[in-house]
Amino acid sequence: MASKKAVAIVIGVGPGLGASLAKRFAAGGYSVGLIARKESSLQPVQSELEQSGHTAMSVTADAGDAASVKNAIDTIRKKFDNDPEVLLYNASGFFYGSILDLKPEVLQAALNTTVVGALAASQEVLPAMIKNGKGTILFTGATASLRGSAQFAGFAISKFGLRALGQSMAREFGPQGIHVAHIIVDGGIRSPNQTESQPDKDIDSFLNSEAIAETYWQLHIQPRSTWTQELDLRPSTEEF
Amino acid sequence: MASKKAVAIVIGVGPGLGASLAKRFAAGGYSVGLIARKESSLQPVQSELEQSGHTAMSVTADAGDAASVKNAIDTIRKKFDNDPEVLLYNASGFFYGSILDLKPEVLQAALNTTVVGALAASQEVLPAMIKNGKGTILFTGATASLRGSAQFAGFAISKFGLRALGQSMAREFGPQGIHVAHIIVDGGIRSPNQTESQPDKDIDSFLNSEAIAETYWQLHIQPRSTWTQELDLRPSTEEF
Amino acid sequence: MASKKAVAIVIGVGPGLGASLAKRFAAGGYSVGLIARKESSLQPVQSELEQSGHTAMSVTADAGDAASVKNAIDTIRKKFDNDPEVLLYNASGFFYGSILDLKPEVLQAALNTTVVGALAASQEVLPAMIKNGKGTILFTGATASLRGSAQFAGFAISKFGLRALGQSMAREFGPQGIHVAHIIVDGGIRSPNQTESQPDKDIDSFLNSEAIAETYWQLHIQPRSTWTQELDLRPSTEEF
Amino acid sequence: MASKKAVAIVIGVGPGLGASLAKRFAAGGYSVGLIARKESSLQPVQSELEQSGHTAMSVTADAGDAASVKNAIDTIRKKFDNDPEVLLYNASGFFYGSILDLKPEVLQAALNTTVVGALAASQEVLPAMIKNGKGTILFTGATASLRGSAQFAGFAISKFGLRALGQSMAREFGPQGIHVAHIIVDGGIRSPNQTESQPDKDIDSFLNSEAIAETYWQLHIQPRSTWTQELDLRPSTEEF
Repeated sequence: MASKKAVAIVIGVGPGLGASLAKRFAAGGYSVGLIARKESSLQPVQSELEQSGHTAMSVTADAGDAASVKNAIDTIRKKFDNDPEVLLYNASGFFYGSILDLKPEVLQAALNTTVVGALAASQEVLPAMIKNGKGTILFTGATASLRGSAQFAGFAISKFGLRALGQSMAREFGPQGIHVAHIIVDGGIRSPNQTESQPDKDIDSFLNSEAIAETYWQLHIQPRSTWTQELDLRPSTEEF
Repeated sequence: MASKKAVAIVIGVGPGLGASLAKRFAAGGYSVGLIARKESSLQPVQSELEQSGHTAMSVTADAGDAASVKNAIDTIRKKFDNDPEVLLYNASGFFYGSILDLKPEVLQAALNTTVVGALAASQEVLPAMIKNGKGTILFTGATASLRGSAQFAGFAISKFGLRALGQSMAREFGPQGIHVAHIIVDGGIRSPNQTESQPDKDIDSFLNSEAIAETYWQLHIQPRSTWTQELDLRPSTEEF
Repeated sequence: MASKKAVAIVIGVGPGLGASLAKRFAAGGYSVGLIARKESSLQPVQSELEQSGHTAMSVTADAGDAASVKNAIDTIRKKFDNDPEVLLYNASGFFYGSILDLKPEVLQAALNTTVVGALAASQEVLPAMIKNGKGTILFTGATASLRGSAQFAGFAISKFGLRALGQSMAREFGPQGIHVAHIIVDGGIRSPNQTESQPDKDIDSFLNSEAIAETYWQLHIQPRSTWTQELDLRPSTEEF
Repeated sequence: MASKKAVAIVIGVGPGLGASLAKRFAAGGYSVGLIARKESSLQPVQSELEQSGHTAMSVTADAGDAASVKNAIDTIRKKFDNDPEVLLYNASGFFYGSILDLKPEVLQAALNTTVVGALAASQEVLPAMIKNGKGTILFTGATASLRGSAQFAGFAISKFGLRALGQSMAREFGPQGIHVAHIIVDGGIRSPNQTESQPDKDIDSFLNSEAIAETYWQLHIQPRSTWTQELDLRPSTEEF
């Protein structure tokens, strides 16, 4: 067993933050399991990781379907023959518009993708983490985690809920050695590729996905005497 | 139309806060529509209101089922032949226990009862409120609205979400004359009847349901120049 | 002693909120002691109260000078021959401008007026409140109580500090029957007189000082089973 | 000028966090200026730094005296012939006890040490940071930054105020390239030396001063696209 690499799982992978998270934890020595709804979101990231000599695998799943999420994690665990030590939950539903136009089933779908999926994924990885006395679970929050703005009800309800889940998990499992933290991403994100295609925009007005991923990594390597439960991230030029 | 009384709807009626809310708004001159899951929760309240000369009607509905909630409100509107001017949303799901034991479908049910039902009910009453340029929507929060404690994840996720909904609604509809507020009930509630049956407990260590209802009423009658969006309520002896 | 009226003290009296607070508590049956820096701020309020048949007295004092505040309260207590049952602390320092221009002594002065004066005044009234097992202390907060905005450092530092004082006092003295609450006034205030002189402005875009005072009164009469520690107040049209 | 090392200043240096901060920034390549009230607090830290080949100097000053703080920083600037690029403000006043026993002058002293000194120090380093378009200012907060507990009024008032200062500074100077962040240290701190002398206590129940210092360093090196304004730190076993 000594030769097996530790496993990190990223749920909610696309060309932006998800890809950067995968690359950062791969660079840190982890085998990375990638989960997203569409194969087309996963393949470019997996290819890039493998071309850099990293170990990665992809599984499509609907984050809003608890069974689907659990199955995907189980597939990764079996393939890597190892229990995940890190879970990065980066999936979220979104709805912009008036409360009058937010259909109950749309709110339910957003809640499923943002919160229920995070619960399901956590339940799938927690037992081994508890047994091993260590693990890291990081949730991606947003401005809407702290503020219910007009036109953002569906997003804010879900992100407030995810924050509550993170707090309850941190309080329940922290003493057992599992670090649960919530990262409030307050602003638009741009990945290196996106930067190239938008050369005329002020680069400093967007969060950099690789810098965000570095923060996740730093949270992961904090010693258990000195853990952060929540922090915010925003561009220097962002009004807040 | 001048003779019709204004209508207030209370969702989540039992012997405690729901009953006190109904009585307070009835005393304030409103016809009160009572909604709860069980007929047995509604009848004692309706009887007491009618015996005091107030106008009340009861409809059973599942707060966790958006269509059921909307139908119940529509039934009340038709019976009273008037659009609701006040909505008091007091229903909530609850789960106490480890995150490992919180089944995804139990979390979904709690979210439906606490948040999705509040959205559905609000959507049913808002159009007339907007047209009339006035209305009051009050949500019952809890300690768990602000804090995700260990063992309280299911409750906290739902109550955080309800708080977000309240904020987004206040910001969207406040300028149109609709007062949306969130009341954080931080402690155990006791109604007058419950007090009699527990004479040996320290009466001051429980919130009084009639005093809470009075606070809801005071929020309702605030002029639109001077509105509260959020307040807390707790016994003088409560640690916080 | 049965014939003596209870005493309320208002610190920080001018034509706006201070005057409205004095009138509301006078109308509620209190002898009112008025404290402000300038005689010219006090006299119109005292005259109006006396012309309405209320009992009032005025003492000039510098809220930023602890001894001055304590002396003023003592003067009121002796004149009315009764210990204050209510303290409304409405004084605050203010500075708008860059942090680079905020002289340390200006910050100290703002802190003295906003926080140290509130401490001194509270210390002067608390012993009798504790002995009597009841009392109400209400602090006037602001948007800046929750948010340190650019250009508002001096005000925000002071108002954050006042909020902390209110919380610590509530937690220490609540169980002894003393209700300490913090009211966040989020917006510009207009008193009835000011309204007349600015007829062309949108009246609903300002808080109404009499409506704010009514909220203070409602907080005061909450039973000890059901106390609010903090609430916000803003116009329906205010962005927040 | 190319050969001059960048300068970091630590205010509030003792055997615990202050020493660890100085060592971490020295290890990162900074000349470190140490400021504390007592020579005896400074000398062991300076000696340790110099024995490790780092550049350090010490100046005694009273953080609660704005002129004293400004002079100390100016002395360091002249000695190193360079403007400080980093300011770590770690000084704070403390008072534990009833609000009734918190003398106004004791509160003023706590505010001076915790907040006014931070303002004065910031004013001394900001002009050059603005001119250079970069700089880092980090404030040490505490549990009391977010919560006014009973018996902690003096500490909480000061720490709430420091948090407000940090927010206002971040909002004013962030767009000019200066990173201002606030670190909430929620729990007791133990430095490596202290650990040796208390071998029987649960090491994980204390924050590790070197791990805290690492977090300050990571905040310092965040790129300006992706800055944290606030985070918390606590032991895995801490209740919160």
